[in-house]
Amino acid sequence: MSIRTPEIGADAAAQLLETVRQSAPLVQAITNSVVMGFTANVLLALGAAPAMVDLPGEAGGFAAHAGGLLVNLGTPHAEQREAAREAVAAAADSGTPWVLDPVAVGALPVRTALAAELLERRPAIVRGNASEILALAGQGAGGRGVDATDDPESALDAAQELARGYGSVLAVSGAVDVLTDGERVVRGHNGHPLLTRVTGGGCALGAVIAAFAAVEADMLAATVAAVTAYNLAAEDAATRATGPGSFAVGFLDALAALTPDALQAGARLA
Amino acid sequence: MSIRTPEIGADAAAQLLETVRQSAPLVQAITNSVVMGFTANVLLALGAAPAMVDLPGEAGGFAAHAGGLLVNLGTPHAEQREAAREAVAAAADSGTPWVLDPVAVGALPVRTALAAELLERRPAIVRGNASEILALAGQGAGGRGVDATDDPESALDAAQELARGYGSVLAVSGAVDVLTDGERVVRGHNGHPLLTRVTGGGCALGAVIAAFAAVEADMLAATVAAVTAYNLAAEDAATRATGPGSFAVGFLDALAALTPDALQAGARLA
Amino acid sequence: MSIRTPEIGADAAAQLLETVRQSAPLVQAITNSVVMGFTANVLLALGAAPAMVDLPGEAGGFAAHAGGLLVNLGTPHAEQREAAREAVAAAADSGTPWVLDPVAVGALPVRTALAAELLERRPAIVRGNASEILALAGQGAGGRGVDATDDPESALDAAQELARGYGSVLAVSGAVDVLTDGERVVRGHNGHPLLTRVTGGGCALGAVIAAFAAVEADMLAATVAAVTAYNLAAEDAATRATGPGSFAVGFLDALAALTPDALQAGARLA
Repeated sequence: MSIRTPEIGADAAAQLLETVRQSAPLVQAITNSVVMGFTANVLLALGAAPAMVDLPGEAGGFAAHAGGLLVNLGTPHAEQREAAREAVAAAADSGTPWVLDPVAVGALPVRTALAAELLERRPAIVRGNASEILALAGQGAGGRGVDATDDPESALDAAQELARGYGSVLAVSGAVDVLTDGERVVRGHNGHPLLTRVTGGGCALGAVIAAFAAVEADMLAATVAAVTAYNLAAEDAATRATGPGSFAVGFLDALAALTPDALQAGARLA
Repeated sequence: MSIRTPEIGADAAAQLLETVRQSAPLVQAITNSVVMGFTANVLLALGAAPAMVDLPGEAGGFAAHAGGLLVNLGTPHAEQREAAREAVAAAADSGTPWVLDPVAVGALPVRTALAAELLERRPAIVRGNASEILALAGQGAGGRGVDATDDPESALDAAQELARGYGSVLAVSGAVDVLTDGERVVRGHNGHPLLTRVTGGGCALGAVIAAFAAVEADMLAATVAAVTAYNLAAEDAATRATGPGSFAVGFLDALAALTPDALQAGARLA
Repeated sequence: MSIRTPEIGADAAAQLLETVRQSAPLVQAITNSVVMGFTANVLLALGAAPAMVDLPGEAGGFAAHAGGLLVNLGTPHAEQREAAREAVAAAADSGTPWVLDPVAVGALPVRTALAAELLERRPAIVRGNASEILALAGQGAGGRGVDATDDPESALDAAQELARGYGSVLAVSGAVDVLTDGERVVRGHNGHPLLTRVTGGGCALGAVIAAFAAVEADMLAATVAAVTAYNLAAEDAATRATGPGSFAVGFLDALAALTPDALQAGARLA
């Protein structure tokens, strides 16, 4: 049985990429200090407008008007935690779709508590690797940092449970990406291992999902399109890369050059 | 009527680039966390010595001895705000030229208040896009984040008013850069749109202006030279780029390779 | 008299690189905000697993289980200072080898006090340029920021004194690297000046040393291997670079591609 439906297949993804390019959605990224620059460059390459507004007193007001919001918990210092709470509250009030990336939850107590708190605000999308999703669901220990030590399939049950419990789409990253809204399950077979050799390879995807969520009401369709576009750019860049350095540079070029037609032709969804 | 005068034309710019290379001015950059790495790399490529000293208790003492100072308000967390105040006070006392980059002022209250406060300390140079300069002058709403939604020419009056009021040079970035000390107006026609597809494309320019201000007393001449060198490196890099990723890399190479002769030959000033 | 001994020569370095690749040590980096992204990418290129856990309440618990720890004082904001203290205490208790990089100590009071305090916790390795090592030993003023204004040989006495006093290996970076445990002295003749034109060129080395220290009990042998691998990647990248931008990218590719055989063949140690 194929789960590919008109609204979440390659056709819809291609159309959404076109929409992102035309509308240049404003994406607020409250993200970790390791990947801020790369994340902004990924959004710019995609055609979105990044804004790293992560200050208490500013983050909430901005989130009310942003097209999409990413809250990534990679280095959640005190001001950023406060800004994240503000932004998420404003996003909930104003209907701004927001993505939670619960980086390395499980073993690390500050972010684990914050992730649990933010989850109650019902993110539109949660993105993480299998270890993080399992930890978020109260299963497993969360790997050893940002490493994925579990397979996405092993987190499918946890992802579906979270999706149903919080009304969120769950995006579990791995060699095969597992994407679900608790009912539908889509598997994305695009991508390249070099993405795991570049810092921000996972984190920046959360921002790209927020960009697509800004232009599409079906959060699963938005997530499928974002993941597919991102992974196709990685595949393209890998054909020219001579290592992780040139791969990261070429990835930005490939993402900027990705056409809706190439996205439609290259998507491998099931 | 051409405004090109001996002290602010291509000849002077070429000479200043030579001086920057020979003296390797120490540039203190208090800047946002998204572009810190890129800004430091831009300064190193230029031949300056970057120092991201943005800590209360250190920023003031350092500013007293730095050649130039940049205060960029992209992500002004509490410690950075305090460090900025310290540094600006010390710069004012010791005659260190400093550049204010009022990123995204207007809509965002924390930085807007800080920019107004710092402006009273009379920066040597203010650099921003048209929306930011209009907002700083109390006109317009400041765009939608870091985006420039206004044309530099539309901000000329505001820029001249600010320049006269605070004794500053105003550098309004855009497709054509408008640079003024309130009396003289220079327009820079160099540059490339790919600069707007790289995070820090505008922010790092503020640091480069600070480097040139460290070696030249005429702040308009220093600004013209900095903007021209920066934009010529962008033009050069664009000829080899296959997208925003390779452009950013090639921009650093081009800035390091830019010769005074090439600067003189390529400058398009009016 | 050659100081090359079996445990610190090119053979041992090659073997250690192989071990790093096979075990992918978890390296916690508490480092400055300018170079976080580059440092993580360097660790990933090497084959290690980076984790930038620099939060009070998390840093200590993580350090107890990390393979190695870097504490770099480039931008030591309040939370990072607290996290550094936590992490160092936990590392001392649990035997996690840790590297202190006292960036720009001497003239800047906050980090100078913190470096003196952390030094008392006896780091496994201290890495810095000659000016920093002299300042740490209470000699000299520490240069003018991150610049090395002194030659490594001029810091040899200070390095040996620190090594003996704190039971640490001292790594003094420069055109020729001077590495000592207070008894043995090894000089590394590999490297390339372009490393000084890339921000993080020195800072990321501290993280690489922590990765090697995670897999080898002889801290001088680990340091020699790390410095040699790092510098050989720089030499390789320099052959293809057209400036500092392409050098930084090629450096990551070269580090990922460096084989134990190439390390053994290229090492120039004395």
